Amino acid sequence: MIKDIYLDNSATTKPYDEVIEFISHINKNVYANPSSLHSKGLEAEKYIKSAREIIAKSLAVDNQEIYFTSGGTEANNLAIIGYLEGNPRKGNKIITTKIEHPSVLEVYKNLIDRGYIVDFIDVDEKGVINLNSLREAIDDQTALISIIYINNEIGSIQPINEIVEIKNSIDREIAIHVDAVQAYGKVKILPKKLGIDLMSISSHKIHGPKGVGALYVKRGLKVKPVIIGGGQEFTMRSGTENVSGICGFGMAADITTKKIDENYLRCMKIKEYFKNRLYEEFPKEVFVVSPKDASPYILNVSFSDIRAEVLLHHLEMENVFVSTGSACSSRKNVHSHVLKALGLRPETIDGAIRFSFSAFNSIKDMEYTINAIKKILPKINTKRGGKR
Amino acid sequence: MIKDIYLDNSATTKPYDEVIEFISHINKNVYANPSSLHSKGLEAEKYIKSAREIIAKSLAVDNQEIYFTSGGTEANNLAIIGYLEGNPRKGNKIITTKIEHPSVLEVYKNLIDRGYIVDFIDVDEKGVINLNSLREAIDDQTALISIIYINNEIGSIQPINEIVEIKNSIDREIAIHVDAVQAYGKVKILPKKLGIDLMSISSHKIHGPKGVGALYVKRGLKVKPVIIGGGQEFTMRSGTENVSGICGFGMAADITTKKIDENYLRCMKIKEYFKNRLYEEFPKEVFVVSPKDASPYILNVSFSDIRAEVLLHHLEMENVFVSTGSACSSRKNVHSHVLKALGLRPETIDGAIRFSFSAFNSIKDMEYTINAIKKILPKINTKRGGKR
Repeated sequence: MIKDIYLDNSATTKPYDEVIEFISHINKNVYANPSSLHSKGLEAEKYIKSAREIIAKSLAVDNQEIYFTSGGTEANNLAIIGYLEGNPRKGNKIITTKIEHPSVLEVYKNLIDRGYIVDFIDVDEKGVINLNSLREAIDDQTALISIIYINNEIGSIQPINEIVEIKNSIDREIAIHVDAVQAYGKVKILPKKLGIDLMSISSHKIHGPKGVGALYVKRGLKVKPVIIGGGQEFTMRSGTENVSGICGFGMAADITTKKIDENYLRCMKIKEYFKNRLYEEFPKEVFVVSPKDASPYILNVSFSDIRAEVLLHHLEMENVFVSTGSACSSRKNVHSHVLKALGLRPETIDGAIRFSFSAFNSIKDMEYTINAIKKILPKINTKRGGKR
Repeated sequence: MIKDIYLDNSATTKPYDEVIEFISHINKNVYANPSSLHSKGLEAEKYIKSAREIIAKSLAVDNQEIYFTSGGTEANNLAIIGYLEGNPRKGNKIITTKIEHPSVLEVYKNLIDRGYIVDFIDVDEKGVINLNSLREAIDDQTALISIIYINNEIGSIQPINEIVEIKNSIDREIAIHVDAVQAYGKVKILPKKLGIDLMSISSHKIHGPKGVGALYVKRGLKVKPVIIGGGQEFTMRSGTENVSGICGFGMAADITTKKIDENYLRCMKIKEYFKNRLYEEFPKEVFVVSPKDASPYILNVSFSDIRAEVLLHHLEMENVFVSTGSACSSRKNVHSHVLKALGLRPETIDGAIRFSFSAFNSIKDMEYTINAIKKILPKINTKRGGKR
């Protein structure tokens, strides 16, 4: 049997074996409700506390600044809706970019319906925010700036430092939210040091279980809960805690954080190798969409005259698994708003394939993938008879 | 080592071994994002579909009427907030009872702040809604009636049939939401047959994993999503699906549903045995709070002159695990709103202990518990020197 070559790690990652075992252990042995007063309840609470400590430490923040959620989407919803509703007098304008994740964009659509103003700042052809436009957009109604740190489709990295500097140069209390779902555990991002007020992270992007995420909320910041009830998570997020999920997230964060530099270098080598081999083998066909200085975990490339979906299905027949656009919206048959914001031609967008890496990948995998593409391209071209 | 006697099953249950194994299997082998276009994504989607089918079948509803959430609390939030926001012209009044779960009560607090009117109907000393008061409360602003089917603290069961009949006798479109978190998998509750429009259920109360639940929404009913983004769950609930959690929920629902009658009888025998033995051994001290015809899964009793917390801690030293009031709010040092609504004296409320059962319990466990209480009561009384 041929090994699966999973290159869709920005959609989700394979959980670590240790994490899977730990989840089983918790489900079997630490099954009580953390709200229960007895020792079994306290034990479950301790395990949550320990996961919270690991994640807080990895971000160099206080334990009480980490709130567990059901995932990155909920964290993004909570950050934006919760901050605006918690601070109704701080303005009705939000500044963001044109290349945000759907979990942020859909929130904006709702907010616009409710009378909020959302300013979508342009990005350049490298997918980086126009800082002049950002500076000009800030006005006396601006309450929140929300930015995706590493874009999920192309891997472009935003200059958070400079964004915070611009915000700080203005005499106005504006909160900064960073969607760090594709960044956490992959690049070092310390919210306090950077001046970030709210930051969303997710477990299943770092080899933890799905259904868990967290929101960093700077101490003292008012955020109105979205899911309410029994008052769990210091009243920020109600509902019986997903104990095994949280524990799995904690362990995945621990493993990933310890290997963050090693994994970064490994994926950088994999990405560079793959990119160079693509240029070597398909000099005429390949167009690299991701900017040179993008995250080492993501490489978006477009093959001229080849529809991404067709290539994707041929690749899976060779046991190579990739995405077109972002997984979260790939089922919708619309052009990616991110690729459109880069100013790419429709044909390039149609051909865009996202290869996304993890430390489980190897140079050998990439060479295999190159050979697979070599096998596939002539087939597709023949079928189409050279015509589009 | 003495076996743990876990009698806190209304707070949460121990997951079935098969469920724990299945979760591991999914985490190991079906780790892709269900939104991904490749076969691994489709495979993950198929597993979710299969879990949805099991749950839909157990409720005799269509697959498309089941929406997975992160748990019962989110399902309750989504049902109430989502229905009201989705139907702004159907009125601004909600009718409910005085013995609801915090995940519903906190939502009402918020809604009242936003101008909604919430009518909390009285219950009798058996914890059952006053149907005359309900009938009188319905007016031309009533949009929603939301009722907890089996109360989580005392196990009283509401006459949903009669509630729906009353609603139907009025010429007005009113939706009925039922919080069935303590009922699902324990008693048969078929929403379509009963005329229920929205129904919340939870996985971890039926030996499934924590962090998963579902909301039944009658086809055609408008519900505005609370968590928005990539459009998962037919746009009702965004965020990468908790695949392994959903699969675990599906399997737990399958096992529980197949054994629903057997488990019901088993727990009924356990509860009746325990209640009779309590009356035999502690005729003067014991007061049974739960009504006679309550759920067989819950027995709330109060020991005169003994604070529930003290008894709870002595019981855990004997490896018996119980709750005072409901787990979801037990950390808060306030009198249970449910027990207050029954008209109980403060001393009775202070002494109220909830024993809650599952099919994992046995008559032997209950006899052990009786002996433990026999050992404990004189100790507590001596310590207190007979005084309160």
